[in-house]
Amino acid sequence: MIPFRENRSYRRFHQSVDISTEDLKSMVDAARLSPSSRNVQPIKFFICNERELNSLIFPNLGWAGYLKDWDGPQEGERPSAYIVQLHDKNISAGYSCDHGIFAQSILLRAVELGFGGCMIATFKKEVLSEILRVPDHMEIIMVIALGKPKEVVVIDDIKDGDVKYWRDGEEVHHVPKRRLEELIWSPDGLLSHSL
Amino acid sequence: MIPFRENRSYRRFHQSVDISTEDLKSMVDAARLSPSSRNVQPIKFFICNERELNSLIFPNLGWAGYLKDWDGPQEGERPSAYIVQLHDKNISAGYSCDHGIFAQSILLRAVELGFGGCMIATFKKEVLSEILRVPDHMEIIMVIALGKPKEVVVIDDIKDGDVKYWRDGEEVHHVPKRRLEELIWSPDGLLSHSL
Repeated sequence: MIPFRENRSYRRFHQSVDISTEDLKSMVDAARLSPSSRNVQPIKFFICNERELNSLIFPNLGWAGYLKDWDGPQEGERPSAYIVQLHDKNISAGYSCDHGIFAQSILLRAVELGFGGCMIATFKKEVLSEILRVPDHMEIIMVIALGKPKEVVVIDDIKDGDVKYWRDGEEVHHVPKRRLEELIWSPDGLLSHSL
Repeated sequence: MIPFRENRSYRRFHQSVDISTEDLKSMVDAARLSPSSRNVQPIKFFICNERELNSLIFPNLGWAGYLKDWDGPQEGERPSAYIVQLHDKNISAGYSCDHGIFAQSILLRAVELGFGGCMIATFKKEVLSEILRVPDHMEIIMVIALGKPKEVVVIDDIKDGDVKYWRDGEEVHHVPKRRLEELIWSPDGLLSHSL
């Protein structure tokens, strides 16, 4: 069974647990084997599991927008690795939704290998590009934070349309998800059977 | 092992092999359990496994842009089901790369259930919207064709940067993929170890 349910967005990790370069490459390989719009494959991957460089990347990332009184994981609970997706503009002008496809493959593979992570689309692009020495023809489009999860994340049924995730007193992270019945849409009478 | 390699873009199917509504719902559930930007979940899913409606959907889809002398699967090899992703503009203005994340989950789950499919981003939006009676506040963003695959798809190493897939004399579909070494990017000297 593919671990869709186990693949939650994790933001606190056992920072001391390293992820090997081999495992990171295996995650990128999962992306490599995934569909790319018109098969153009214009996205490159920067992988990092070095503590010093991790500590330079970390301050440039935005964490959990809905948790207003939380600035992100503290020292000791930070990601032990990153995979950064970069658009190579020498290959194509756009990249459609390839980065979403690839990120999902990377995270599912991470879970399969005993890790977990989080897609991060909010980051200080200019500073991060300097740190990673990104050349002009490339652009950072997403950072995937990775590590050995150190938090419990549970899925709740959504209430009153409120999509904001939250943390309870036991530090459990709650994510409201729409129910299947709400997501499956059909106009009245189009299908011969009811869903 | 998650079937990333087995999950190829299939465009010819055993059309007579139905996909049950239960299986289609299970694929949508895989999308439901996947990450959504800011957890907004603004995408709805239309599922169809009815032959008559399938035959109305089919002519509005674009197939395999690189195969210039092929107009898509012939009768008997067409998809037996579709999952259409629609943006619900009443929920949010945008949807980031959610549709890519969701489509990958749907296709991986399809493979796990013994099926396969293809993401289709080229379609006659206006006609298709009429057929599916899509209201003004919703917009079709992707059609996922599904069925029991009836073709062999193999991955080749890319040659001379040519990303165009092609079919050989035995009707085997070849997809050139970049090698892992080409996809993993790193500026000289930034990491302490070589990749």
